[in-house]
Amino acid sequence: MTVITLLTDFGLRDGYVGVMKGVILGIASQVQIADITHAIQAQDVREGAFALGRCAAYFPPGTIHVAVVDPGVGTRRRGLAARLGEQFFVGPDNGLFTLLYQQAQQRGDPIELVHLTQTRYWLPRLSSVFHGRDVFAPVAAHLANGIPLAELGPYIHDPVLLDIQQPERIPGGWRGQVVVVDNFGNLSTNLTQEHLQNMDNTCVRIAGRAIVGMVKTFGEAEAGVLVAMFGEENDLAIAVVNGNAAEELGAEVGTAVEVVEAGEKA
Amino acid sequence: MTVITLLTDFGLRDGYVGVMKGVILGIASQVQIADITHAIQAQDVREGAFALGRCAAYFPPGTIHVAVVDPGVGTRRRGLAARLGEQFFVGPDNGLFTLLYQQAQQRGDPIELVHLTQTRYWLPRLSSVFHGRDVFAPVAAHLANGIPLAELGPYIHDPVLLDIQQPERIPGGWRGQVVVVDNFGNLSTNLTQEHLQNMDNTCVRIAGRAIVGMVKTFGEAEAGVLVAMFGEENDLAIAVVNGNAAEELGAEVGTAVEVVEAGEKA
Amino acid sequence: MTVITLLTDFGLRDGYVGVMKGVILGIASQVQIADITHAIQAQDVREGAFALGRCAAYFPPGTIHVAVVDPGVGTRRRGLAARLGEQFFVGPDNGLFTLLYQQAQQRGDPIELVHLTQTRYWLPRLSSVFHGRDVFAPVAAHLANGIPLAELGPYIHDPVLLDIQQPERIPGGWRGQVVVVDNFGNLSTNLTQEHLQNMDNTCVRIAGRAIVGMVKTFGEAEAGVLVAMFGEENDLAIAVVNGNAAEELGAEVGTAVEVVEAGEKA
Repeated sequence: MTVITLLTDFGLRDGYVGVMKGVILGIASQVQIADITHAIQAQDVREGAFALGRCAAYFPPGTIHVAVVDPGVGTRRRGLAARLGEQFFVGPDNGLFTLLYQQAQQRGDPIELVHLTQTRYWLPRLSSVFHGRDVFAPVAAHLANGIPLAELGPYIHDPVLLDIQQPERIPGGWRGQVVVVDNFGNLSTNLTQEHLQNMDNTCVRIAGRAIVGMVKTFGEAEAGVLVAMFGEENDLAIAVVNGNAAEELGAEVGTAVEVVEAGEKA
Repeated sequence: MTVITLLTDFGLRDGYVGVMKGVILGIASQVQIADITHAIQAQDVREGAFALGRCAAYFPPGTIHVAVVDPGVGTRRRGLAARLGEQFFVGPDNGLFTLLYQQAQQRGDPIELVHLTQTRYWLPRLSSVFHGRDVFAPVAAHLANGIPLAELGPYIHDPVLLDIQQPERIPGGWRGQVVVVDNFGNLSTNLTQEHLQNMDNTCVRIAGRAIVGMVKTFGEAEAGVLVAMFGEENDLAIAVVNGNAAEELGAEVGTAVEVVEAGEKA
Repeated sequence: MTVITLLTDFGLRDGYVGVMKGVILGIASQVQIADITHAIQAQDVREGAFALGRCAAYFPPGTIHVAVVDPGVGTRRRGLAARLGEQFFVGPDNGLFTLLYQQAQQRGDPIELVHLTQTRYWLPRLSSVFHGRDVFAPVAAHLANGIPLAELGPYIHDPVLLDIQQPERIPGGWRGQVVVVDNFGNLSTNLTQEHLQNMDNTCVRIAGRAIVGMVKTFGEAEAGVLVAMFGEENDLAIAVVNGNAAEELGAEVGTAVEVVEAGEKA
């Protein structure tokens, strides 16, 4: 069965997500629907893009990801369906798919993008405020039923892309940023194992604190200790064992993180 | 596959919803289960009725909706299974299905109601506190397996119905109420496009504020502006662009909303 | 279709749960996935054990329960797959399955435990921080595909078990503890109908309050009244009708609860 995922900023309180599932199941009854998250901060396209960027690859080839963080709903912003590598993506053309688009480009994966204009694949009545229900859910269901991407609208080549900050060289190391703060208060950064691979011993500097060396996992240090480690995506992650690093450091998305050889001057 | 939806006030913390799914899947393994919401305010039957009223129609014909907001569990309140039009509803007879019942009546749709008395379609052991698990989930699963409604108990014709406030005429317009406050703080009212259809230019009055004219969608006004528009159900909706209208206005379910021709005196 | 359940302390915000579903569906596309809860307090193995202990039995035979509350992830703690009676369990060997293991022992049900060592049933790349995704989800999916337990690693006979406090005799009755506080603030205890079966009229003492007699359900008393009743598991439960007993009593998991014949001295 084809998998359709949902990622939104709708929350789970109002039934909006349930309604999208109803629409999908009315068109394509033999699908597996899986929620990625519905707790993206309201209208925070960047947060949605990072969440989707981290999660999509764990779903099987052929998965159709519906992402709706859509401050421009009802305006002239385009709706989009995309094939990026072996998966499909449906949502507003506002940058939500930036990370996956760039990954596909870097890998040389097949990329196809269409502007959703074929209203026969939408709900009959189009609201100005809920295209997740009226456009994106039905389009995803039709894709699951085998409708080709090209049927949904004309090809485009200029998707809206977010400006994603990249780590930069500093003397003796790199400066990056916190890109995700998770539910446990763990910090994920845009620095990865590759940035650190030639360092003998690292010193991670964040929010006025310095962490010398890295641990392999939480269990290596005592409760309450601030540690650096490689996270679940080989990203440099910063955590407080059994605690909340974001709160303890006052860190948030965008907070600077530097990593240098331990012993280098700050 | 038949769709079974769940709507409760159980929250997602305690596993009560998971248990209902376990019971359903133990009886009917080939169903699609979709959550509508489990965040109805504890025992707020009215809120549950409105949520179900707004969401049910987006599910396919044959869907079985299980709704459990059940302050009277274990007392003499009846359990109910209903066919309203092309869908089925299972839950306590306390008004949860009022809006859908009234819609079915207005449309002349088929209506069948049975009082759940046939204990062979329930779990063998009946608790006094969790009929969602012991009665409603198994009944829904048996319906999905093709057991006819009439097998579940005797027909009844006097379901408990909530007293739903209706908009009333005022000089030059209508007075209605806020009926739903969503996760974003957007306000949905019981006034609809039909109430406003003969007005040239509207003035919406709520909580001491007046909104002249309507926008089509959020993107038409600047962030922070209080706007009136037609919501996803053609309802008159009030929102603050990129903000929270409920907080800004101090509005809640029941707050009065008036709409008159712009230029009319208050 | 085989049912796979998920119980974690991950929350629903970050997509961790969605990723586990992606991994499962990539290996076993024909399964029913049901969430039990993802709101276990971070790293609270005991709370996870009680939640799983209360919910598992309501799922059908053959269900595979994946439970991940895993403070020791990446350390030498073992991963476990178990058959307990007619169901399967996958997760860290840290006591999460204690209650179900003990129930199976008491019933003389079949018990098989294996230490997860066969990496060919895991994701190819193993992180140190997210075995829910890298080990437990894929192992569960392979079990659903029919891989026998014995293929996953060697049998073991010494699972980690939590020390679960049991009720004790006191003059004229029993002393137990609150074991679960639910979303409504209702208190569930480790005292059951069996402990109370020879009492004519009970007096339940908790947090300086005494409740004489029991009700059958919430609806038997007025709103605001503190009541004792048998909960959905035949457990002695304490609730405030339409209120929050945990808040009103300042009670929490571990709070002492005594039950004696009414009229006995405190």
